[in-house]
Amino acid sequence: MANLAFLGLGIMGTPMARNLLRAGHRVALWSHGTEKARKLASKEPNAVFAETPRAAAAEADCIFLCVGTSEMSELVLTGPGGVIEGARPGTVVADASTVAPTTSRAIGQRLAERGIHFLDAPCTGSKPGAEGATLTFMVGGDEAVFDRVRPFFEPMGKQFYYCGGPGMGLEAKLTQNLTLANMMLAFNEGMVLATRAGVEPSLMVEILSNSAARSGLLAFKAPYVLKRDFGTNFSTKWMAKDVGMALDSAREKGVPLPLTGVTFQMFQAAIAEGYGDEDMCSTIKVLEDWAGVKVAQKS
Amino acid sequence: MANLAFLGLGIMGTPMARNLLRAGHRVALWSHGTEKARKLASKEPNAVFAETPRAAAAEADCIFLCVGTSEMSELVLTGPGGVIEGARPGTVVADASTVAPTTSRAIGQRLAERGIHFLDAPCTGSKPGAEGATLTFMVGGDEAVFDRVRPFFEPMGKQFYYCGGPGMGLEAKLTQNLTLANMMLAFNEGMVLATRAGVEPSLMVEILSNSAARSGLLAFKAPYVLKRDFGTNFSTKWMAKDVGMALDSAREKGVPLPLTGVTFQMFQAAIAEGYGDEDMCSTIKVLEDWAGVKVAQKS
Repeated sequence: MANLAFLGLGIMGTPMARNLLRAGHRVALWSHGTEKARKLASKEPNAVFAETPRAAAAEADCIFLCVGTSEMSELVLTGPGGVIEGARPGTVVADASTVAPTTSRAIGQRLAERGIHFLDAPCTGSKPGAEGATLTFMVGGDEAVFDRVRPFFEPMGKQFYYCGGPGMGLEAKLTQNLTLANMMLAFNEGMVLATRAGVEPSLMVEILSNSAARSGLLAFKAPYVLKRDFGTNFSTKWMAKDVGMALDSAREKGVPLPLTGVTFQMFQAAIAEGYGDEDMCSTIKVLEDWAGVKVAQKS
Repeated sequence: MANLAFLGLGIMGTPMARNLLRAGHRVALWSHGTEKARKLASKEPNAVFAETPRAAAAEADCIFLCVGTSEMSELVLTGPGGVIEGARPGTVVADASTVAPTTSRAIGQRLAERGIHFLDAPCTGSKPGAEGATLTFMVGGDEAVFDRVRPFFEPMGKQFYYCGGPGMGLEAKLTQNLTLANMMLAFNEGMVLATRAGVEPSLMVEILSNSAARSGLLAFKAPYVLKRDFGTNFSTKWMAKDVGMALDSAREKGVPLPLTGVTFQMFQAAIAEGYGDEDMCSTIKVLEDWAGVKVAQKS
């Protein structure tokens, strides 16, 4: 069993850290404000509470991180009291946060100057995937480094894709979310048009589900929309953040993405209408308001 | 066994008519220019060649139609020498063409004035579905009329959805194609960005295929794109036609569809670049040219 650390204990981080602990690893825990780390450490025998990222890093062979923004990742890893001040040379830092590839590459470079290895390792699978240890990880960085720490990933996930050099895990992750966001809007526009035309929404979902338009997204989201349940699995505002980062990445590379540009604006419209904290399928309500219909199953 | 007619013998109509013939029905055949009808009739013992739609309609209890445009459908059914001049009152006309719902409703009304029943019955499943009798039909019109002729649909397809009154089969079909077109563009934008970022295209497809972004479209089209095979299953120009009709329908209803508007323009761009007759997955080449990459598997 190894000495690990887990930094950031939100909706994703808490169950991920718990799965590492239950696999028998000793895990130093830190969270923003320290309260969540203190609480989890008090319940788990293998856990050690850490006051700062620096303290959490001190004895760890591998440090995992799962925070909400590029800024937070930068602060926790390279800021004052950060991992960079505590980690020994040879330690591996694996950042499971979805952050900008550019920021991630810059962090990796600063850590490398101290002899600390860095992997970008964003994951997908939402809260149920984190709890059930069925996450998919997309990893960028040095392949030999990943091979060495891969056993520590295994208690948290099911699929592990090595995607290439620094930032490549994030490029793959942003692409996946960009694709999902566009598919969400494709669903919204089709369903609102059909409903406005008078096709019964449940029938339209059934027709789509039995055609080439069937998808994981359709199977997951359509029942929630038909039931008018916009409780959050993945929020509109977090998806907007990821689509925004994908567009930034495309802009840096000079790649025009007309569809994704419109999708981003529709997510912004949904946030402006107050749906930012609801599930991303709430974006359909913007179109519903325009069309004067609701995509609901017959009651 | 019944007296039927089949009008329009293109990529879809020919195998559909053949399946009706092989189910033992007597089928009067007509095609634009008459050549294809003459040829198929010479090969099939239950077939009867008809010089005009009027002649084909004369003895038929149920008349199927599969042509390429709204104008063609109007001409064949209600033009000079058309079905309206030959069909007896009580005959059922089922139009399997994908045409504008507005045109279809107008045709139905003109036929109704002569006591001829009309169903809009567009289908999906492309050429393999027509050949293998696995098409999905979406039907609009009088439900009792559909129930009566449903046995004649069965040799041609596998799934039959009654969608509501006149034009509702077409509304469902246009919605399905609009959704597919948007999903195609979602795939294109994601794959071009990932490829430009340096993610290996086959790996990106594998990651998408194991995520919520998996879809029937992805499974069908991604292998063709990776192999750079743009041979036509469903052409860019036909999909553009259908998306255009969906946008017309949305416009009549006052429903704004921002994403679909962009998708339509990207299909127009692909046609302008000369990809109109290639498969609709050739739309990716517009983005590839902009980004200076090709979404190809490693050779």
